[in-house]
Amino acid sequence: MKRIGILGGGQLGRMLLQQAANYPLETWVMESDPDCPAAGLCHHFVKGDIRDPDDVVAFGRQVDVLTIEIEHVSLEGLQALEAEGRTVLPNSHALGIIRDKSLQKAFYAEHGIPTAPFRIIEGMAGLHRNLDFLPAVQKLATGGYDGRGVQILRTEADLSKGFDARSVLEKLIPVHKEVAVMVAIDAAGRQTVYPAVEMVFDPLLNLLDMQVCPADLSEAEGWKAEAVALSVARNLRSPGLFAVELLLDAAGNVYVNETAPRVHNSGHHSIEGNHCSQFDMLLRLLAGYPAGNTDAILPSVMVNLLGEDGHAGTPVYEGLPEVLAMPNTHVHVYGKGETRPGRKMGHVTLLGGDRHDLLHRAGLVKRTLRVKGTERC
Amino acid sequence: MKRIGILGGGQLGRMLLQQAANYPLETWVMESDPDCPAAGLCHHFVKGDIRDPDDVVAFGRQVDVLTIEIEHVSLEGLQALEAEGRTVLPNSHALGIIRDKSLQKAFYAEHGIPTAPFRIIEGMAGLHRNLDFLPAVQKLATGGYDGRGVQILRTEADLSKGFDARSVLEKLIPVHKEVAVMVAIDAAGRQTVYPAVEMVFDPLLNLLDMQVCPADLSEAEGWKAEAVALSVARNLRSPGLFAVELLLDAAGNVYVNETAPRVHNSGHHSIEGNHCSQFDMLLRLLAGYPAGNTDAILPSVMVNLLGEDGHAGTPVYEGLPEVLAMPNTHVHVYGKGETRPGRKMGHVTLLGGDRHDLLHRAGLVKRTLRVKGTERC
Repeated sequence: MKRIGILGGGQLGRMLLQQAANYPLETWVMESDPDCPAAGLCHHFVKGDIRDPDDVVAFGRQVDVLTIEIEHVSLEGLQALEAEGRTVLPNSHALGIIRDKSLQKAFYAEHGIPTAPFRIIEGMAGLHRNLDFLPAVQKLATGGYDGRGVQILRTEADLSKGFDARSVLEKLIPVHKEVAVMVAIDAAGRQTVYPAVEMVFDPLLNLLDMQVCPADLSEAEGWKAEAVALSVARNLRSPGLFAVELLLDAAGNVYVNETAPRVHNSGHHSIEGNHCSQFDMLLRLLAGYPAGNTDAILPSVMVNLLGEDGHAGTPVYEGLPEVLAMPNTHVHVYGKGETRPGRKMGHVTLLGGDRHDLLHRAGLVKRTLRVKGTERC
Repeated sequence: MKRIGILGGGQLGRMLLQQAANYPLETWVMESDPDCPAAGLCHHFVKGDIRDPDDVVAFGRQVDVLTIEIEHVSLEGLQALEAEGRTVLPNSHALGIIRDKSLQKAFYAEHGIPTAPFRIIEGMAGLHRNLDFLPAVQKLATGGYDGRGVQILRTEADLSKGFDARSVLEKLIPVHKEVAVMVAIDAAGRQTVYPAVEMVFDPLLNLLDMQVCPADLSEAEGWKAEAVALSVARNLRSPGLFAVELLLDAAGNVYVNETAPRVHNSGHHSIEGNHCSQFDMLLRLLAGYPAGNTDAILPSVMVNLLGEDGHAGTPVYEGLPEVLAMPNTHVHVYGKGETRPGRKMGHVTLLGGDRHDLLHRAGLVKRTLRVKGTERC
């Protein structure tokens, strides 16, 4: 059996492993926390530090193909494995570009991929030198994740909220719509694209909050979004699965916001909503199987379950039976041992019906299913 | 987290665990083979003998609710656990009736549930005394499984193929169609029924070979099949999931063939084909969640992948990439370490299209995907 290694053991790894059990694959996970969401669902769990080059190399030598479920892994380790002729998917070239937002932005500019105008700045001094560029979004070049490391700076008064670190300062685009397009590329360079999904963000946490498929795009917007996403993935010159987040303004211009070189929150609906889920697709790429059909089966909406404010400790899923009584509601709880305010604890996908109906039902799910905890914080 | 215990670690347990990872449940499996299909997908694997009362009791005391994925478990052990007030689903009463085919047939007769005329016989002497009852099917009262322990006896010349053991001798019904209806019953007695599926058997191995949903039934046949299945499940007086196999003759008469008190091969298509799969449904029953929607999403056909004749040893899945290139084809390989002729090694579900198209594609899958082995036998 082909040995598939995953660096990181969070919910993305967990859902990948649920699907991996359908194929003749031997699964390996490396993660420092032996109680992580993916730990109980793999053939081999290796306790190790995914940021440590030696750990990554030792782990990578035990498997036939290595992937990631989080960007923050040792690039040096992956490069060493590639130098030995091992397959890393996505490759270290693509990962290196993506996980440094300054390189990522330069990559878009270099390949004529539309993205918001930007400047690379070094810490607070750089912010003060670029007051003319406000209103803007400051994004940490490295280390940001899940809404952390992103700050909107509208006027000089906001500068105190800025990061004193190497960052991208990006012009604030008047966002009309936000969509994500997922693209798979196999080892031969063949691309397969998923239908665009439309995202609604939580303005406080900057976390993906609800997402609808299909996205409500004009024909021109739809083609443009797809073409831009394909261009991003193609130019990264790596096999893999890429989630391209796009911003649209009211004039229908499309800008790349950022790209993730892996399964992504914006593809969770595909587990039930599409013939070939994003997890199935990544496994097909890893195993060398042909790509699946990315068509939607039914319209869908996906709601993240975030840890409730003021709650910590062991999670308590209030309202779960009530939500399971709602028709065509698919609950995914990630099995995390502790909740924290805003932590991604699970998601729910609703299938079928028109957009209005889906959004209405999704709102009901959000209000009904609350992730509380045994402790207050 | 509620602790769910499963007796048996085969493919049914494996698929149950894939779905269990969506809920806040702690999963326990007991099985003698630590390399069984379910072993790598549970929180706690306990090496033990499911036929041993002491092992079953010790295991059952560690969990909140206990279920089975095979009938051949210690009934005595389950009864002892129930006497302690523990929840076993299905209960030992229903399991006791079902796993002895002579009791099962008597149960149908007692509750006015249509089934083929039968006699209970004791070994070869009994066979010889009932020559007037041929043509008939002899079924071992206990110990038969997956097509083993069933023998068609048309004339006296066939008697040498008969079993010298306590058996049911059942009149051979001229089978026009064979369907299965799955029924879920919760602790309060509320029933939920799945759409009927139509089965095509392999005449040699008597293994479920291909199954189509929806079944091609007249309206009257459909209602009758559903009513009979509901009656079987209701009269067993146990919460649980019951797969009721039904035979129809050309006149539209419905006869119960047999019932399984668990997730079943005839429900595998529901993973992709129905809003709430049989595995999801059983977990909902075990966890005390409401029943899900059993409606079909799309028409489906399911094909079993059986170990190829003449092949043994480590399985080799010939044609897997070719089948994965066929649209809307969902492959489930069970991760068994060894193949044997006729062994259930996996299944494939195809979605969408009309019945003719589905059967055509399923035939293509059967001819393309072959489970061979590293050894000849």
